[in-house]
Amino acid sequence: MIYDVLVIGAGVAGLTAAHKLRALLPNASLLVLEASGRVGGRTLTEKVKVCPEDERNTNTEEEDKFDLGGQWVASGQRHVIDLLSQLDLSTFPQYTTGLKVMQLGGDTVRTYSSDIPSLGSLWALIQLQWFIWKAERLAGGTSILDPGNSHHAHQLEGETVHSFLHKSVSNVAVIQAIDVACKAAFGTDASRISLLYFLAYANAAGGVMKLFEAKRDAAQEARVKGGTQQISHILAERIGIQNLIFNQPVVEVQQSTEDGDTVTIVTKNGARYVARRVILSTPPNQLIKIKFDPPLPPYKRLACENLPMGHLTKFIVVYRKAFWREKGYSGEIVSNGGGPLGDVGGVTCGPLSVCYDATTHSGTPAIVGFIAGRQGIEWHNKTKEEREQGVIKGLCTMLGEEARQYVTYIEKIWSDEPYVGGCPVGFGVPGVTYTLPHLRLPFLRLHFAGTETATEWTGYISGAVQSGERAALEVTHALHPGTLTKEQLRGTCHDAFSLPQLGVTSWKDSRTLSDLFFVAVVVVVVIVAVVVARW
Amino acid sequence: MIYDVLVIGAGVAGLTAAHKLRALLPNASLLVLEASGRVGGRTLTEKVKVCPEDERNTNTEEEDKFDLGGQWVASGQRHVIDLLSQLDLSTFPQYTTGLKVMQLGGDTVRTYSSDIPSLGSLWALIQLQWFIWKAERLAGGTSILDPGNSHHAHQLEGETVHSFLHKSVSNVAVIQAIDVACKAAFGTDASRISLLYFLAYANAAGGVMKLFEAKRDAAQEARVKGGTQQISHILAERIGIQNLIFNQPVVEVQQSTEDGDTVTIVTKNGARYVARRVILSTPPNQLIKIKFDPPLPPYKRLACENLPMGHLTKFIVVYRKAFWREKGYSGEIVSNGGGPLGDVGGVTCGPLSVCYDATTHSGTPAIVGFIAGRQGIEWHNKTKEEREQGVIKGLCTMLGEEARQYVTYIEKIWSDEPYVGGCPVGFGVPGVTYTLPHLRLPFLRLHFAGTETATEWTGYISGAVQSGERAALEVTHALHPGTLTKEQLRGTCHDAFSLPQLGVTSWKDSRTLSDLFFVAVVVVVVIVAVVVARW
Repeated sequence: MIYDVLVIGAGVAGLTAAHKLRALLPNASLLVLEASGRVGGRTLTEKVKVCPEDERNTNTEEEDKFDLGGQWVASGQRHVIDLLSQLDLSTFPQYTTGLKVMQLGGDTVRTYSSDIPSLGSLWALIQLQWFIWKAERLAGGTSILDPGNSHHAHQLEGETVHSFLHKSVSNVAVIQAIDVACKAAFGTDASRISLLYFLAYANAAGGVMKLFEAKRDAAQEARVKGGTQQISHILAERIGIQNLIFNQPVVEVQQSTEDGDTVTIVTKNGARYVARRVILSTPPNQLIKIKFDPPLPPYKRLACENLPMGHLTKFIVVYRKAFWREKGYSGEIVSNGGGPLGDVGGVTCGPLSVCYDATTHSGTPAIVGFIAGRQGIEWHNKTKEEREQGVIKGLCTMLGEEARQYVTYIEKIWSDEPYVGGCPVGFGVPGVTYTLPHLRLPFLRLHFAGTETATEWTGYISGAVQSGERAALEVTHALHPGTLTKEQLRGTCHDAFSLPQLGVTSWKDSRTLSDLFFVAVVVVVVIVAVVVARW
Repeated sequence: MIYDVLVIGAGVAGLTAAHKLRALLPNASLLVLEASGRVGGRTLTEKVKVCPEDERNTNTEEEDKFDLGGQWVASGQRHVIDLLSQLDLSTFPQYTTGLKVMQLGGDTVRTYSSDIPSLGSLWALIQLQWFIWKAERLAGGTSILDPGNSHHAHQLEGETVHSFLHKSVSNVAVIQAIDVACKAAFGTDASRISLLYFLAYANAAGGVMKLFEAKRDAAQEARVKGGTQQISHILAERIGIQNLIFNQPVVEVQQSTEDGDTVTIVTKNGARYVARRVILSTPPNQLIKIKFDPPLPPYKRLACENLPMGHLTKFIVVYRKAFWREKGYSGEIVSNGGGPLGDVGGVTCGPLSVCYDATTHSGTPAIVGFIAGRQGIEWHNKTKEEREQGVIKGLCTMLGEEARQYVTYIEKIWSDEPYVGGCPVGFGVPGVTYTLPHLRLPFLRLHFAGTETATEWTGYISGAVQSGERAALEVTHALHPGTLTKEQLRGTCHDAFSLPQLGVTSWKDSRTLSDLFFVAVVVVVVIVAVVVARW
């Protein structure tokens, strides 16, 4: 049979697309093909033993659910918030009460309560604030739809976040703070990320600090009660589970058909599926493994080849009680593992980068954290037992010896996940961010979804939802032109390139201005302080 | 049957390995599997019509052979020079007599006869010389075997060639000169290449300028009479053509066999081959498409994922007479296409980057050139006719209107070549050059060849030869331990990590020193000049 639409991938993007298509085209024949044996993609909610072994007989509620994949949503993420409400799922805020703990620029462990780490000296704080200021200004002027058309894009494109950082600041703790932030947000080191990509990505989230914070409107604001994989489970149910086929890795996509009006999908086991339109929600780093006939256009191929996935291992440590809360800590940790800047391999460092309180809505105390970037790969090479010991040792250093009395340690190495190959997001390497718009452009009868193609909250669950909805609109328009309003088509690829370019700023100008402005502010503050002190 | 050795890939690396194994282990059973239908990999020699149509009846010698892939060798490239002599192939020098033509930093076309472009002003020349000086010093101190262990590797690693260049120089023509040089050497823009990778790569060739020049010992010194694909053809004959099977793209490599002592190779058509040892000469960007069971170790995977192939289209324009020689030109052209620096897309620019005289040993006059990097992708999106017109227009601008009277235009878009995916080399993106040694490390019963794994002339034909020989030695040692001498094993992966690290230099130190030294030299020269003028 010839399906109207095939959706490849049963993650949030693919299932959102299928769900939306069900609503837009109720009579269309629709099939979802998933490479793995489960729904959810980069979301994964697992049951975990939460009760110590010696107490299991007396305790009935022995398990709780934890997110081993994407876990946060924010009130400003309109696409996922809308979807959660449609699916009757609710959220609860990330716990942030109390002191944060940091270990940057050396072995010293410090606590702080502000949004950004205090870093041990006023000079470091000024440098960090300066860097954030510059980055925010540049991000605000970077086009999300077409980063390569931002002013001075060519200059920004040839820089990594690392090279830009080293140009701007000298303090080791500040450099480590930004590197750790990149590790948590992208799963990789600042040295691998295109500055232009970073700026566009931050702008798509509403600003640089939105990526890193856990307060209102920021990326780590809230969690989904019962876990985020429910989004995909409920979507799959609504689409009709009989319309999903699992274990169907796509190996070939043929559009050179004789009739010229269908797409044939060949899966690894040789099965063939034919459809009028196909939505591919496959991550870019996996798309490049598929054979396309005719081949994908050069710019799209280049975009996919240059969005490698971050290297992130996520761990959850379950405790009997939230001892850190009792000690006045929020559970938030920022660390480079405790080693010096030179030890980039993390060989002598511990595995920690960023941790948060992960206590569930039903009250099971836990800490969640990430082993990421080069440090993550180094620790990936060790055994699970070594990682477990490393994490617990790190938590003891940061939160106290009580951390040793844990109930369960679980982890997920996303780089080992077949058909995903990493987490949280395919990030842009330098020199090719100008190809980004091509990622979401349709190619003949193929449409492309996935959080990497999003223009709001790229890389997050919300971006996946946005991309799925867009792809569904594109396919609807393609199969039944004229049924959608101009308003509905806004933001789809039928429209994206006609949208006015966002305001852009000048790289050199803004750098000079913001630097001078910052210096001026510091000078004024110092003068005022001196005057006040004398008076 | 169980083969002793399977070699994957019938390019120079794979065939050299098989050829060497034939000598080392004459009784071993050996099979070479090639994904495509031909030998040669990134070398390709094609017959081209060389006589104008109206003269074909009167001219008997109507065809000549041109290299559409790798074409140069150098007297310092000991591995390929040795092999050529074994195969009774001879070389002839690249034609360099006469003036070179350049168009950088604007529309103006200039001629020069020195090694480096004159760039229109003394200040530009000083800046270029300064940059080369700094790069040479840093390159000389970068470890080839393990770039990540070079001094201040972390700093260099987070820089692109572009960001380093923009830090060092301000002149537009100089920036364009380095960018064009990168395009010719790597097929990509300076903004995509890790500075650390660039330095290690240059050191493996004996210095930065060796990559870019056509004089003695440099990369473009000489050509092979009759074309470089002959290397593979003759090797295949000597191995025995019955021991090669074509059209066998590998999709799976299984080492989790029950007996624990063999490797099973599954090809796309479902054929299975079993061997005791396997040499994979597949380029890294293609290795990542193969399913490995067990998976490749994390560092090796990361290395492969981050060596994307350059984007290079090679063209040859055949003429009736070498009019440029008559006009006093060498045929060497350096151009950014004629557009301003800002036009990085090359949309308004011509396609040219670097050209050379390509007159064959039998005397057919021709020009060879490259359309590369972002400009190459932009022109890849156009039709062949548009590219042909663009190239001829560019040659007219650079060499004169005589360029319009050409006989034949042929081109090869290497990015479209299946199982290769680009040319000339998989280059390192920032942040992961430390993984490079893992590229050549064996994994269980797999050994790895290919020019990207070489430590001398990485990326060149000679590097492919070196890597093939190394892999053959490794397999010989693995199958028959003790048969090779310690001397023979030097440089193999049984030895590589015990080799002493090469001398390394300090990034900060060398930068400061070379800058100060350079300024001092300039000051002294100026003073001397003034004194001489007054005197």
